[in-house]
Amino acid sequence: MNFFDNIPTIRYQGPEATDPFSFRYYDAERMVAGKTMAEHLRFAVSCWHTFLGTGQDIFGSAVHSRSWSGANDPMERARMTIRAAFEFCQKIGMQYYCFHDRDIAPEGETFAQSCKNLEEIVKLAGELQKETGVKLLWGTANLFSNPRFTHGASTNPNAHVFAYAAAQVKHAMDATKELGGDGYVFWGGREGYETLLNTDMKKEQENLATFLHMAVDYAKKIGFTGQFLIEPKPKEPTKHQYDFDAGTVLGFLRAYGLIDHFKLNIEANHATLAGHTFAHELTVAASAGKLGSIDVNRGDLLLGWDTDQFPTDLYETTQAMLVLLQHGGIGRGGLNFDAKLRRGSTDLEDLFHAHIGGMDTFARGLLVADKIISDGKLNDCIAKRYSSYESGIGKTIRDGKADFDMLEKWILENGEPKLMSGRQEYLENLLNCYI
Amino acid sequence: MNFFDNIPTIRYQGPEATDPFSFRYYDAERMVAGKTMAEHLRFAVSCWHTFLGTGQDIFGSAVHSRSWSGANDPMERARMTIRAAFEFCQKIGMQYYCFHDRDIAPEGETFAQSCKNLEEIVKLAGELQKETGVKLLWGTANLFSNPRFTHGASTNPNAHVFAYAAAQVKHAMDATKELGGDGYVFWGGREGYETLLNTDMKKEQENLATFLHMAVDYAKKIGFTGQFLIEPKPKEPTKHQYDFDAGTVLGFLRAYGLIDHFKLNIEANHATLAGHTFAHELTVAASAGKLGSIDVNRGDLLLGWDTDQFPTDLYETTQAMLVLLQHGGIGRGGLNFDAKLRRGSTDLEDLFHAHIGGMDTFARGLLVADKIISDGKLNDCIAKRYSSYESGIGKTIRDGKADFDMLEKWILENGEPKLMSGRQEYLENLLNCYI
Amino acid sequence: MNFFDNIPTIRYQGPEATDPFSFRYYDAERMVAGKTMAEHLRFAVSCWHTFLGTGQDIFGSAVHSRSWSGANDPMERARMTIRAAFEFCQKIGMQYYCFHDRDIAPEGETFAQSCKNLEEIVKLAGELQKETGVKLLWGTANLFSNPRFTHGASTNPNAHVFAYAAAQVKHAMDATKELGGDGYVFWGGREGYETLLNTDMKKEQENLATFLHMAVDYAKKIGFTGQFLIEPKPKEPTKHQYDFDAGTVLGFLRAYGLIDHFKLNIEANHATLAGHTFAHELTVAASAGKLGSIDVNRGDLLLGWDTDQFPTDLYETTQAMLVLLQHGGIGRGGLNFDAKLRRGSTDLEDLFHAHIGGMDTFARGLLVADKIISDGKLNDCIAKRYSSYESGIGKTIRDGKADFDMLEKWILENGEPKLMSGRQEYLENLLNCYI
Amino acid sequence: MNFFDNIPTIRYQGPEATDPFSFRYYDAERMVAGKTMAEHLRFAVSCWHTFLGTGQDIFGSAVHSRSWSGANDPMERARMTIRAAFEFCQKIGMQYYCFHDRDIAPEGETFAQSCKNLEEIVKLAGELQKETGVKLLWGTANLFSNPRFTHGASTNPNAHVFAYAAAQVKHAMDATKELGGDGYVFWGGREGYETLLNTDMKKEQENLATFLHMAVDYAKKIGFTGQFLIEPKPKEPTKHQYDFDAGTVLGFLRAYGLIDHFKLNIEANHATLAGHTFAHELTVAASAGKLGSIDVNRGDLLLGWDTDQFPTDLYETTQAMLVLLQHGGIGRGGLNFDAKLRRGSTDLEDLFHAHIGGMDTFARGLLVADKIISDGKLNDCIAKRYSSYESGIGKTIRDGKADFDMLEKWILENGEPKLMSGRQEYLENLLNCYI
Repeated sequence: MNFFDNIPTIRYQGPEATDPFSFRYYDAERMVAGKTMAEHLRFAVSCWHTFLGTGQDIFGSAVHSRSWSGANDPMERARMTIRAAFEFCQKIGMQYYCFHDRDIAPEGETFAQSCKNLEEIVKLAGELQKETGVKLLWGTANLFSNPRFTHGASTNPNAHVFAYAAAQVKHAMDATKELGGDGYVFWGGREGYETLLNTDMKKEQENLATFLHMAVDYAKKIGFTGQFLIEPKPKEPTKHQYDFDAGTVLGFLRAYGLIDHFKLNIEANHATLAGHTFAHELTVAASAGKLGSIDVNRGDLLLGWDTDQFPTDLYETTQAMLVLLQHGGIGRGGLNFDAKLRRGSTDLEDLFHAHIGGMDTFARGLLVADKIISDGKLNDCIAKRYSSYESGIGKTIRDGKADFDMLEKWILENGEPKLMSGRQEYLENLLNCYI
Repeated sequence: MNFFDNIPTIRYQGPEATDPFSFRYYDAERMVAGKTMAEHLRFAVSCWHTFLGTGQDIFGSAVHSRSWSGANDPMERARMTIRAAFEFCQKIGMQYYCFHDRDIAPEGETFAQSCKNLEEIVKLAGELQKETGVKLLWGTANLFSNPRFTHGASTNPNAHVFAYAAAQVKHAMDATKELGGDGYVFWGGREGYETLLNTDMKKEQENLATFLHMAVDYAKKIGFTGQFLIEPKPKEPTKHQYDFDAGTVLGFLRAYGLIDHFKLNIEANHATLAGHTFAHELTVAASAGKLGSIDVNRGDLLLGWDTDQFPTDLYETTQAMLVLLQHGGIGRGGLNFDAKLRRGSTDLEDLFHAHIGGMDTFARGLLVADKIISDGKLNDCIAKRYSSYESGIGKTIRDGKADFDMLEKWILENGEPKLMSGRQEYLENLLNCYI
Repeated sequence: MNFFDNIPTIRYQGPEATDPFSFRYYDAERMVAGKTMAEHLRFAVSCWHTFLGTGQDIFGSAVHSRSWSGANDPMERARMTIRAAFEFCQKIGMQYYCFHDRDIAPEGETFAQSCKNLEEIVKLAGELQKETGVKLLWGTANLFSNPRFTHGASTNPNAHVFAYAAAQVKHAMDATKELGGDGYVFWGGREGYETLLNTDMKKEQENLATFLHMAVDYAKKIGFTGQFLIEPKPKEPTKHQYDFDAGTVLGFLRAYGLIDHFKLNIEANHATLAGHTFAHELTVAASAGKLGSIDVNRGDLLLGWDTDQFPTDLYETTQAMLVLLQHGGIGRGGLNFDAKLRRGSTDLEDLFHAHIGGMDTFARGLLVADKIISDGKLNDCIAKRYSSYESGIGKTIRDGKADFDMLEKWILENGEPKLMSGRQEYLENLLNCYI
Repeated sequence: MNFFDNIPTIRYQGPEATDPFSFRYYDAERMVAGKTMAEHLRFAVSCWHTFLGTGQDIFGSAVHSRSWSGANDPMERARMTIRAAFEFCQKIGMQYYCFHDRDIAPEGETFAQSCKNLEEIVKLAGELQKETGVKLLWGTANLFSNPRFTHGASTNPNAHVFAYAAAQVKHAMDATKELGGDGYVFWGGREGYETLLNTDMKKEQENLATFLHMAVDYAKKIGFTGQFLIEPKPKEPTKHQYDFDAGTVLGFLRAYGLIDHFKLNIEANHATLAGHTFAHELTVAASAGKLGSIDVNRGDLLLGWDTDQFPTDLYETTQAMLVLLQHGGIGRGGLNFDAKLRRGSTDLEDLFHAHIGGMDTFARGLLVADKIISDGKLNDCIAKRYSSYESGIGKTIRDGKADFDMLEKWILENGEPKLMSGRQEYLENLLNCYI
């Protein structure tokens, strides 16, 4: 059963290639800054969008139909889908995949049945992993699609739902451990509120923290050593989502004694929905030593919802790779395409063009970022700009040995500071030299 | 020298009043929920916008000219302005005022001269406080208007500017202490960045933290016991301001060991610029026990900049007062009008209409919020919504005695949760019943 | 078969009423400004959201289930749904309803079958109209949900789809005429583009114009005399929708010789998505003599998508009713609730609270607007502000008798104009006096 | 008197150049698509931002000081400034300049004096034009900075201001004609409103139309044959600006019989403030045959105000040049840099880096766009996508010979349309192949 027989295997053919089914920049084995491109980029496919996406939107019904979704029996459909996923990864050279529990296995009549369904598919996925070498980047639980989660999962006003979510996450963590996942993601899609008129924000956030502590305890208990990741998003589907952005989440983790147990999964589209650039959110996370993994799907800055588009902008990917290269890389995380085809991209081929484009744009961004760092001009500018903190009064400040009185005295002696240009336009030109 | 002779003293005349120079709702002595309206509302005028605002905008020059701004000598102008401020407060029944150092006293040729200027005006202000009974809500230093602060104050890449800012804040704190201010505000208007291409975010934030620690130490040293307030704002004038919103600031304070020394000054306009409602930001701060004070000026949600308009929307003020009443009031903080007249409001009378409207809308909001709380219907709905956490498995969760295994077992026994309506439309109707 | 037996009939009980199943302001027979409230407000229920809405969103499946949606056979479901619609209208005192063809009758296997389905339900709806007195405000065709319309209907790059849309609209117009609808609406949900890379904008807009001309011709042919309405929306589902806002649509209609045949259906939520206030869009339409009808559902200005919420803000409804009262009312149009329950409002009762709230907020807005107009203060301010155009050089300008040379001469003689305050803050206070 | 002696003359040095004071792509004489780069690009410097910009913003005072702004006498300052402008143009190879009347000559005590000032500088500018070969792209009048225009110019509620604006525009047009300007621009910075509470929108727009008709008549009278340009902008400084976007302006021009006399001046930053891409606005204008000229300054899509940044994004410039190349070029218009240095760019050198970057990014965009067109792949995709309109029923529709009855019959015979992919992801990859 091969789902992609009409599609050639995607290979690196170089920048001059005209074959749309080739990589122009992504050359998995190529060495860049001491590692292979594959080691830097650790791309992952998203089971939900790539294999279950239908192009449906709020104003229209499913458009994309796939050969692996044809079966009537949900479990048969699940088995075909997971096979399609691994075949896709092999065809395109994707090393990792990510899933929600309910993507890969259907919800059953009872909770127990749902768990059994999941276990069966996990077993199959494990076999496929061995066959293909494709690995699990991270797993997660879908705590937002089913009506029971309408008012949240661990922040639900109904304790019964909290319990349900706990039980479900337990199994999703089991599955992730079983498959050797490098991480487990918490995206609180409905952990937030629609209106303050019916909401006790403090109680809800305390419950969220309690839930995460339970997750930490459970991981310890079962010996799951993958990293725990929280994925910030400001809104949608809820009006306000508690994990608004990187800064907010880090604050929450610190407030509730969770900071040592979690890193962040930063998504480009969520960054811009929160009013930040992708590079900003990456930098906030990395500066705190908490950059765990990345969702690379971009948004459209003129639209106010999660468009989940494949990355195509070289400026974005260059700046993202700059942050990564300068902060020691993505570690056990990866670059997950949480991206969906446009509704109007109705051909199976489009699925390949989309991923090829995303992979190539990041590979090219990696090359550009590496060149920027090797050349050193940009970093020299930054170093020079902050050099006053390397000696004299600046060093005293950095060493924590200055106080207001001392600094006032220093100013009375040294007078007015000299204004230095930030040179933004020059630096923007410099960036364009590398692209 | 009286600047407002043509304006009658503003008095409470009741809801049916047709005199536009009267309060229809703000009755300072009226008891509401155990305190006078004046105690609840602690209104403050902003020296910058109200007395120095000219209607200037980025596309046009000064429009408003005031009789107290006529003198050629800057110090004479400063003396007249502070006199006008106290006269205004008396005329309109405003109990407090707020200032930046450079609002009330002009910058001199040297730092020493600037300090001397400030001291002179502080002395005069002290006398006027005694004469009139008007008090200082909070003081602050202007660390953003002068070109030296172009790249920030304590986050400036140039250590010389850091030192300058320290020296300036020292004196602004001295002035605030001298005048018995209830608080001291840190608004980091240029503590942020324009482009990541020239920025070391981590270093800048570390320097910001160092600066705030110095401020804490200095307050201790001089015995200043007013509360320290950080005022979040996401952007403008800088592209990105580090104190993005309440959640981000709380996280920063925790990360750098500052959480015990600071509260938040929440501004309505800054809330919406960050993508939040005013009530949201108030609730975030209050839930953390960190709601220190309020800037009540609203924005225009269809415009992307700080319009700093006077509050006129009864829904906004009602929800703000609900948060305050339910979290023990504003304490040593107050309701500062950081609001400016529209450029086109060119008459002196407009200054009064603006403040009357703002004060009345908040007074009315207080009455409505009090009624909502007394009636109890809204709070009953909320209590009922979360009641499952009061007993049984919910209580076990709240008591920190549950874990994933226990909850899974409970779910296997108890099955699917029952879906409860959030009743948002009903609650919105209910709110309208009180307005 | 009664679907709402547990719900009492909603009646006017006055502002002090505490029964949540009553009107506090909407009193259909009450005379306001020379007409009954019912004549002013002409409320209409939307068949799609109110009877078919499930609370589904892009991250979650259907939540609301209704007794009238239970049948397996699509036609039986359609019959039950239309019966529910009329029962609902009677229970709540709604005079009108609106539909898309595919709301009331399911798509068949073939186009011919779809037409037959529609005809059958139209016949039933006609009978129910007679029975209940509930009337059709407007009908329309759903040209956006079915996959065939993915790339647009009349702007589709595929002429085959253009033809299909034409055939479908023909029948929807027939149905609207048959049921005596006062109008026919064109909402071009997919008439726009996703990316300019694959789009010939000019050709698509020419085709749109051609299509509308055909519609005009067909209406003439069959003697349909209801008004044709175009409903502006800037985006969603498409990235860019050609009918961006009122100004853009009016320009399009003029460019293609259609201006005499169309009016606008202004929606509050679409206005704010386009960066305008609701009152702005109403005023643009009314100033051009083209305000045809209204969709009253509001958005959330902090969210970037069509939230389609029920109107609850008294400021919004007051300003909307001000525009209407001052421009001769809504004529053959009405106030359609194109609003949906929040996903979390899962009880049948919520459907009633939502519509009661919307109707009451508009009724109250009507009362306030009427009071503002009767008092005359606001209009006096406006008249005075423009009075310089009533005589002298202003009148010469208005009469079209001035030119640049004359005006220069006049300025050389008359010098600098005097600045007059716009009095915005006073006027905002004045507005609050009426609310 | 040479202001830029320390700056080398900027020359083309090719893509590998490392000298930041060189062009890497802009080679004025190079032939591209049948014209020189200079003929395609017709760059213009903006007298206001480039020579008068100070880095001032709403929170801070002037930062940039220039040697040509040092004189105390306003007229001496004006003479030095215009000399600096021409020297700058020569140094950097800019062919054109643009001005507002009040940029180049100061306002006098009286209107007559202002006119005399303008005339004197115009004479000097004329001489400098002859000396240097630098030409005037367009002139305009500043009708927004002076307090008299607070409530608008031709839309002012005070007829006296209308007259003043008329007199001023008369002289600005005279100046533009005198200097051989290719165009005259109308940007209605204050032609709009702050609040509908004090506004008669219809009257204001009628007055705007009357004003524009007078301008047309006056141009005819004096024999000015440059093109008239309206520059859309949605907001800022006013809350709502009547010339919201291209579509709105075209509609206004048609409604008031002005469409034959005006073209549009499209600005990138204004496009995005209105919720459109730059390419969208260019396409709307070009499709109507009304693309007159361009302001190339970009905004920041995460900020809600006019940041007026220099263009640096190759995607934007490529798409802009694609529109231009496909619509016959910019004609008598040009590419005006209405861009300002960042406040923090405090060196004189920054002024050069900014313009070099802008010119190079557009030159590179031109090369990429030319390559895309020569290759033909993109246009082939578009042509194929719409090919159904070239024959059969599609051609009948395009020829205006189809009607609803015919199309219904055709559908009954031809059945369901076939869905074709829009291939967005493929096309985005294709675009990246050229960049």
